[in-house]
Order: sequence, then C-alpha cells, then structure tokens
Amino acid sequence: MTILEIRDYLQKFFDSVELVGEDGRQVSAPAKIESAKIGEVSFVANEKYVKFLASTQASLVIVHHSVPVDEFIPKTSFLKVKDPYSAFVFLLQKFVQPRVIASMGIASSASIGEGVTIGEGVSIGDYAVIGDRCTIGNNCIVGAHTVLLHDVVMGDDTTLFPSVTCYDGTRIGKRVVIHAGSVIGADGFGFAPQSDGTYVKIPQMGIVEIGDDVEIGANSTIDRATMGSTVIGRGVKIDNLVQIAHNCTIGEDTVIASQAGISGSVTVGRHCLIGGQAGFAGHLELADNIQVAAKTGISKSFLQPGIALRGTPAQPMRDQLKEEAMLRNLGAMREKLVRLEAELNKLSKS
Amino acid sequence: MTILEIRDYLQKFFDSVELVGEDGRQVSAPAKIESAKIGEVSFVANEKYVKFLASTQASLVIVHHSVPVDEFIPKTSFLKVKDPYSAFVFLLQKFVQPRVIASMGIASSASIGEGVTIGEGVSIGDYAVIGDRCTIGNNCIVGAHTVLLHDVVMGDDTTLFPSVTCYDGTRIGKRVVIHAGSVIGADGFGFAPQSDGTYVKIPQMGIVEIGDDVEIGANSTIDRATMGSTVIGRGVKIDNLVQIAHNCTIGEDTVIASQAGISGSVTVGRHCLIGGQAGFAGHLELADNIQVAAKTGISKSFLQPGIALRGTPAQPMRDQLKEEAMLRNLGAMREKLVRLEAELNKLSKS
Amino acid sequence: MTILEIRDYLQKFFDSVELVGEDGRQVSAPAKIESAKIGEVSFVANEKYVKFLASTQASLVIVHHSVPVDEFIPKTSFLKVKDPYSAFVFLLQKFVQPRVIASMGIASSASIGEGVTIGEGVSIGDYAVIGDRCTIGNNCIVGAHTVLLHDVVMGDDTTLFPSVTCYDGTRIGKRVVIHAGSVIGADGFGFAPQSDGTYVKIPQMGIVEIGDDVEIGANSTIDRATMGSTVIGRGVKIDNLVQIAHNCTIGEDTVIASQAGISGSVTVGRHCLIGGQAGFAGHLELADNIQVAAKTGISKSFLQPGIALRGTPAQPMRDQLKEEAMLRNLGAMREKLVRLEAELNKLSKS
Repeated sequence: MTILEIRDYLQKFFDSVELVGEDGRQVSAPAKIESAKIGEVSFVANEKYVKFLASTQASLVIVHHSVPVDEFIPKTSFLKVKDPYSAFVFLLQKFVQPRVIASMGIASSASIGEGVTIGEGVSIGDYAVIGDRCTIGNNCIVGAHTVLLHDVVMGDDTTLFPSVTCYDGTRIGKRVVIHAGSVIGADGFGFAPQSDGTYVKIPQMGIVEIGDDVEIGANSTIDRATMGSTVIGRGVKIDNLVQIAHNCTIGEDTVIASQAGISGSVTVGRHCLIGGQAGFAGHLELADNIQVAAKTGISKSFLQPGIALRGTPAQPMRDQLKEEAMLRNLGAMREKLVRLEAELNKLSKS
Repeated sequence: MTILEIRDYLQKFFDSVELVGEDGRQVSAPAKIESAKIGEVSFVANEKYVKFLASTQASLVIVHHSVPVDEFIPKTSFLKVKDPYSAFVFLLQKFVQPRVIASMGIASSASIGEGVTIGEGVSIGDYAVIGDRCTIGNNCIVGAHTVLLHDVVMGDDTTLFPSVTCYDGTRIGKRVVIHAGSVIGADGFGFAPQSDGTYVKIPQMGIVEIGDDVEIGANSTIDRATMGSTVIGRGVKIDNLVQIAHNCTIGEDTVIASQAGISGSVTVGRHCLIGGQAGFAGHLELADNIQVAAKTGISKSFLQPGIALRGTPAQPMRDQLKEEAMLRNLGAMREKLVRLEAELNKLSKS
Repeated sequence: MTILEIRDYLQKFFDSVELVGEDGRQVSAPAKIESAKIGEVSFVANEKYVKFLASTQASLVIVHHSVPVDEFIPKTSFLKVKDPYSAFVFLLQKFVQPRVIASMGIASSASIGEGVTIGEGVSIGDYAVIGDRCTIGNNCIVGAHTVLLHDVVMGDDTTLFPSVTCYDGTRIGKRVVIHAGSVIGADGFGFAPQSDGTYVKIPQMGIVEIGDDVEIGANSTIDRATMGSTVIGRGVKIDNLVQIAHNCTIGEDTVIASQAGISGSVTVGRHCLIGGQAGFAGHLELADNIQVAAKTGISKSFLQPGIALRGTPAQPMRDQLKEEAMLRNLGAMREKLVRLEAELNKLSKS
C-alpha cells in the first residue's frame, strides 16, 4: 500500500486524517516505533514514545494532531489523527496474513449428525464432530477436532478454533470467536450434601447462551446453568483460562482477563473490566462500569456503578490504597508508640 | 408427571412426604420460585424465599413441614418434607433431558489398540483413541476425541466427556465422571537443578488413581506421581481448571472449587471444602473436615480437624477475621496515637 | 541391573562414586526410603531421612560421602556420591517404563497438509492434523489429536502429547515437550475501546517462539505476539494451567509453577523461579535469578537480580515478612495504645 492509499483507507473510519510529508512511498508492514525499518508504518499514542520520532526508520508514523513533526520530514511521513492508537489498530487489519483454520466446505473426515442444518460458506475442519440437530449459520468456521454435542446453535460468521467442546444445547450468537480448548456448557458444580457425608449430583439442566460479538480465549470454561441459562452478553471479551460458573450473567461489553474466576449465580454489569486472577464469591452482583483490579477477591455485591475495586476482601480502590499505605507505615507507628511510652515513663517518674 | 406421582417418587427416598392441596395436576418442568409458571414445580428451602409463595404461579412447591401454606391453596399444591432442597434435587433427576455423549457401541472411526478389554453396554465416540491393553468396564461412555494412552483402566459406569486425555497407567474407578478437556496423569513438574543452571527432568514413573464416584470438571489437570500414585479418594468432587500436582492424596468426599491449586505431595483429609483459587504449598497436610476459604494461600500443615482457614498465609478463620478487623481499624489507631502524642507534649511542657 | 552395573552407569555422569557393601545383588525398581523393599534402590539426600537407614529394606541406597553406613552392612549396600539426589534422578531414567505416545511412522488416520516437510524417525498419532507448509524435525512425536495450523516448525526430538493445539506460525525448538491440552499461539487479548463502549479486536499478527529444551505442562496457554514474537527462552520449564500473554519474553532456564499468569509485554529474566498462582501486571520487567513466592502479585518492575519477592503488591521478601510480622503484632500494639492512654489520663489528672 502507498501512504496515500493508507490515508484513504483510514478516512473511511476516522474524521480529519491529515497527511504530512511525501505520499507515494510503499508501506509493506506495521512495526513498533523503536524497531521500525524503512517501508514500515508505526504509531505514537503516548508522549513517552515521541522521542523515538527522531531515530525511527519508519516510512510512515501515525500521530496525534498536536505532535510537531516538521523536523522529521522528509525522512518520515505522518498521518495526523485524533486517536492514533485506534487508527493503527484499524490499519493493522490491512496487513493481517490470512489464517486458515479449516478449508472451505465440510472435511470428508468430519462427523455430521442427523438433522443438522448448515448454512452457506461454512468451513468444517478435519475430524470435527457435529451432534444431532445442530444448526450452523452462514460463513461459520469449525476448527479441526472441535466437538458440538447435540442441539447446539451457532450464529452467522462465528469461528470455533480447533478442539473446542460445546455441550448439548449451547446457543452461540453471530461473529463470535472461541479459541482452542475452551469448554462451553459443561455441568455446573453442584452437589447436595447428604447426611452420610457423601454428595448427590444436582442435575444441570440449563444451557449457556453466548451473545453476538463475544470473543473467548483458549482453555476457558463456561458452565451451563442448573435451570435456565448462563448468559454471556453481547460484546463480552474473555481471556484464556477463565472460569465462569453456572447461572452467571455477564453484562454486555464487559472484559474479563486471564485466570479470573466467577462463581455461581453472579451477575456482572455492563462494561466492567475484570482483572486477571480476580475471583468472585457466588450469588453476588456488580453494577455497570466497575473496574476490578487483578487478583481482587470479591466477597459481596457492589451496586454503585463506576467504582474501582481492589484487595481481598475487595474494597473500593481508595479505601484499599489507604489501607495499604497505612500498612507500609506500621513500622513508623510502632516506633512512635515506643517513643511515647518512654516519654510517658520519664514524665510519670519526674 | 402428576403431583401424586411426584409424591410417590419422593417417598422412595424420603420419610414423611406430606401432600397438601390438589394432587392430580400435571407438572412438566422444574423452575425457580420467582419465575415458575403454571404446570411447573419449585421449592423453598430458605426463609428469604417464603415471600414468593404468594406470587408464584408454580403448580407445586416443595417446602419444609413448618411452612404454613393453607392460604395458597388451591392456587398451589405443596409437598412438605424435612429437607426440601434435597427433595427438589432428587426430583430434578426425573426432568433431565437425555444427553447423548456418544452413541451406543464403538464408533467405526474410533481407534482401538491391541489387547484392549471392553465391557458390555459401552459407548465409544467418534475418533476416540484407546491405547494398547486398556480395560473399559461395563456401561462406560468415552466421548468423541477422548484419548487413553496405554494401560488405562476405567471402572464400570464411568463417563469421559469429549477431549479428555488420560496418560498411560491411569486407573479410574466406577461411576466416575470427567468433563471435557481434563488431562489426567501428565508428568509431575519435577526438575533437578544442575550446577550449570540448567535442569534435568525427573522421570515421573507413577500413575494417577481415581476412586469411585469422583467427578472432575472441565480443563482440570491431575499429574501422575514421581513414584507410586497420586490418589483422588472416593467421592471427591473437583471443579473446572483445578490443578492437582504429583503425589497428592485427596481424602474421600472432599470438594475442590474452580482454579484451586494443590502443589506436590500434599495430603488433604476427608470431607474438606477447598474454595476457589485457593493454593497449597507442597509437602503439607490438612486434617479432615477443614474448610478453606476461596483465595486462601496455605503455607503449612493444619492438623486440627474441622477448622476453617482463610488468608495468605492461611490462618484459622477467627484469627484472620480479627486481623482483618484490626486492619480496618488502623486509621483510628493512628489518630489516637497522634492525639496521645499531642497531649503528652502539652503535659510535659506544663 | 546389579549394584555394580548401577555404579558403572552413575560413574558416566558423576565423579567419585564409592561402592560400600555387597555389589552383585539385583536391583529391579526405585522406591522411597520409607517403603523400599528388598531388591529396590532408594536414596537419602536430606539429614531428616538418615534415620530410615536402620529400618529400610532397600538393597541399595545412594547417600552422601559423609553418611556413616558401616552398621547397615550387609543388609543394605551403598553408593556414596557428592549429590545423592541428582544421582538418583539419573538412575530413575534407567527404570522408566517405555511410554508410547504414538506409534512410529505416520498414522493412516492423520491428516497431513500440502507442502509439509517431515524428518526421519517421526511418529504422528491418530487423527493428528498437520497444516500446510509445516516442518517436523527428526525423531519428533506428535500425539493423537494434536493440531498444528499452517506454517508451524518443530525442531528435532520434540514431543507434543495428545490434543495440543499450535496456531499458525508457531516455532518450536529442539527437545521440547508440550503436554496434553496446551494451546500455543492463540490470539493475544487485545481490544481497542471505542467511543460507543464496544471494542475492536487488535489483529494479533505475531507468533510464539519456543526455545530448545523447554517443557510445557498440560492445559497451559501461550499467546502469540501482536507484532513480533512471544519468546520462551531455552530451558524454560512451565507447569500446568499457566498463562503467558502476548509479547512476553521469558528468560532462559526460568521455571514457572502451575496457574501462574504473566500479562502482556512482560520480560522475565533468566533463571527466575515463579511460584504457583503468582500474577504479573503488564509491561513490566524482572531481572535474572529472581524468586517469586506463590500467589505473589507483581505490579511493577524489579530490576535487582537475585532478590525474592512476596505479597500483593509484591515487595522484597524481607520487607513483606516484616510487614506480616507487624500485622500479627497489631493486637499487642492496640493494647499498648489503650494502656498508654489510660496512664496519660491518670497522669494529667494528678
């Protein structure tokens, strides 16, 4: 692509894309600003990286309108935009190498059950197993070795990478991506204690429902509901090795980082950010727009939208940071206490 | 099922099931008390939910003997029992939709090794791989894509969901359930440090033994012993994404929640409850009936049965809660300290 | 093997192997010193276990040169060495039962893509899927159901257990072992927030590079870089259920225990030890030879080599242990404060 073509492409998505410098050069790949070479495009979205503009070999750099660039012309050309990071992300999509997850059509080695409905433009990989009465929407991709038990529904344009397992009845929306090894719809972890100390399994009769535009990482697990549905809202993004237990509801556009674990019957609001290795006790609720720091242990509901949580047990960030600071200060407190005691002794003797 | 039939079914398992109200109505599904509709059955096991008896549309509700129900007749009928929750759990089993994990018989696409023994009534799914000299008991189900390396033994009535991997020599009891993606018997994590800074792998020559009536969730990992066996006792229930390292012994009827991790050579007693994301250092021991709170970090043995543990490093719950309360009180302590200092200064000047 | 043969074998690797006692006995298996029987070999590497020398039935025990053994002759023979633990580990390798992961050759049920290069002495298991243009080195083993997307490279003598998934472009070194269920090269977790509250996926265009002599446990996940490579250095050992995010670099010979999670763009030095369930925030750096305690939460860079870290947020071990001790002492501080207050009141009244 030439710089001019890149400008034209970005103008489809962003207002006021301003080109500074030579516009005919060929750009063949994206790169980090520190290591970009001639013929590559990079970006600066953070003031800390402006210093690299002098040394970079990049032929094109995307920057904010406010960045002065004249001194770097003609070595480098610039596209000035309001949000250089988003512009670069959109541009990356033009350089993605095509990835083949499964060839177009249904692999002859795939096992297709009875009463299965398959849309147009579908790719089903080697040894994939599609259970009875499944429905696969248009343009779906099912990776090699992925197993759908019976009665699974996949919306249009959804991609399952290899070795995903969806249990019976799972309902997946449109444009969903599920990475390798994830297990959707396994039985919730429910056992009723008996008087002899053993447990009886509680039948897990519900399903998992996954909304449109969800992405789920590798080796994550989302359990089916005991009754009704475990619900993953539209646009939710889930990282690797995440656990979502039975009967949870995750609000739209919420983001959950790796190794976080959400216990049964938790309701998380919309547009929350859940940090890595955070954990939730069961049967609690989080309002919208809450930020949960990594490793936080949430033991009760937080119903005020927009707060930030931290610590175990979790508290609003401000309280928790105060507590941590006080903890760091404990040594000083103890010294003061010893000093006061000595002074008091002196005083009471005199 | 009619209400009368449900009464008769529950009487097989529970004493003194008392029917109040109309007994001929058809009941077609279970539901939560808040959302149950006409023709559905629900339960109330917790006083907080008694209030829903007035508004519920359920045709039948299972309650404790002590709950007054006369005012809700004839809208709703009732079965009064001693333990409404367990009764409902047993009843759920009557409403479970049959789930097909693999069709009866051995799929023609399955790969069966040499010297394999297969019992009566077995289902082996598509592309399952059964290694040499494996033994599969009666009525076992092996899901599609599940792999048994050689010399694996499965007891009667055991179910492996799709894409489970059992390494060589794994011994699984009767009525065991292992959910998709779990890996049983991978090598323990043992490496001997060498003087040049590299590591030499310690051969992991033992196996994993899983007792009867164990259930293991999705994507969990249980490592084989270095020598001897990693032992999962009868009736143990393990959730998703749990790690059990080499040479552990987990006592009977112990329950381990999601993302907990148990390091090498740990012995956990019987009937313990291990919370989610709890972690254990290696080579330690837990007595019977110990409750470990979620996220607890256990760094030493606790040999007193029946205690509850919490915090990192773990302490008995009472000590830990006291410490947490004191932590919340630190601000007040600091203020008092400042006040005392001021008073002391005033006093010593006067 | 006879004791003499064992002595000769160990002399290949270790200096000054001294045999004390009868040398012709047959030794057929290794065992723990507490439970070893006649015909078995064991070791004592820790003073605590010297007491078992009197009672053990082992025919041969490997001990340090300094251990007095004359009183146990002729019941037991001894090999005296400088490092009994390492000697025993090397000896274990002679007793390992051969494990078959896949039969020699390419299973007829495996699916091999176009333009694939396969070396000498390779075993590819049932239903394995090898994508287009993959390169598989000499003596590699690919387990049943393992999937390589296209353009994956495996160095010589590398073993993938069953049901591993390697995404396109993954580069694996020599003598690497990856256990069942691990996913290498899935997309990094990167989404650009949009002004309407939704997220746009950031294309993940990089790869994963795994150095020689790496071992990776079961069900772990290592994500591909956004641009460039996620790098796992030579000799790194990774346990089960570990998460390594996009763009990380893990230094040579570093060891990472189960359920640890390393966020995006973290650089870990060489020869570090990362404890189980430890977590790292993104974009930080750890120097060489750092020890991270289990469950530690690292929120900033630590650039001093050789330190030990602990706590959340992580601090040098010494500071953290001091803080924990002070925490245990809080009750005493509070009592002293109350006493001082009373004395001060008394004093100021008098």
